[in-house]
Amino acid sequence: MLAGPGRRENSAEHSWHLAVMALALAEHAPPGTDIGRVTAMLLVHDLVEIDAGDLFVYADEAQHARQEVAERAAADRIFALLPPDQAARLRGLWDEFEERRTPEARFARALDRLQPMLANLSAGGGTWKEHGITADQVLTKVALIEDGSPALGKYARDLVERAVRDGLLAPAPGGAVTP
Amino acid sequence: MLAGPGRRENSAEHSWHLAVMALALAEHAPPGTDIGRVTAMLLVHDLVEIDAGDLFVYADEAQHARQEVAERAAADRIFALLPPDQAARLRGLWDEFEERRTPEARFARALDRLQPMLANLSAGGGTWKEHGITADQVLTKVALIEDGSPALGKYARDLVERAVRDGLLAPAPGGAVTP
Repeated sequence: MLAGPGRRENSAEHSWHLAVMALALAEHAPPGTDIGRVTAMLLVHDLVEIDAGDLFVYADEAQHARQEVAERAAADRIFALLPPDQAARLRGLWDEFEERRTPEARFARALDRLQPMLANLSAGGGTWKEHGITADQVLTKVALIEDGSPALGKYARDLVERAVRDGLLAPAPGGAVTP
Repeated sequence: MLAGPGRRENSAEHSWHLAVMALALAEHAPPGTDIGRVTAMLLVHDLVEIDAGDLFVYADEAQHARQEVAERAAADRIFALLPPDQAARLRGLWDEFEERRTPEARFARALDRLQPMLANLSAGGGTWKEHGITADQVLTKVALIEDGSPALGKYARDLVERAVRDGLLAPAPGGAVTP
């Protein structure tokens, strides 16, 4: 996260920041979560952007479906550049993150959703303002944070309310902040 | 590492790259090494550069001594920005890396020494050429790689020989590559 409205962070910076967040916020992971595995997943989760590029989190479903195909092809190509045992190990981390079944993957995904919210708050609204995102859209992403960490989910929900109050995020078109 | 002679990588990129190297090269750590702890150390080891800046690895002893004092002051200030329990945990990782006593710290330090060598090889000589560094100087750093991982130490020693052969690194003034 770059704490300002200047250039956007690149994938290496983003991944480093998420991994450090995992270390600092480890106490908010469900008991027994292997934080080493969380950081490992966060370190490799965006390698596919080398080929597939990035997609805005609020893109439509068709765009997300196309992106998923592109990212899978990227993973097939990029991890296969490594010797087979390393390829299998790192690809396994990427698959685990994508499948979001283990507590480690769910906590890692929660951080990956929380971080852009913090970035937008630091950048005076950031991509929320640029793209006219409203609070109800952000709250659909908060559900994924809650799924990985109830404590961080609650924190994120409070952030959304504060962002609306501070004029950094438009309220839901209907008016209510909490659906 | 940026695979080219363009801009230098920043600390976030450098730390991400080292942590990914730790994942990929885990098999070259001594048996029983906790790779999660290695990546955690690598993720935080350069946070002090926020205050203390970076120092060229071949700077003289007096400069290194001043840098050490500056980095310790930076660690005191920066980690203390966190809540006490998080501060203690992350500061502990930083101290462990600096003290270089545990197998995890020694492997982490080995990677931190190996990575600039790879960067210089990719960048046609890079900082070796810029600063007129010779093979004997690089080999003093290779000792630290060997200390953390005999396998990576041997690999680094071979890299130095290759770099001299390929004209990317000047031979030792005396003439012999291997001291």
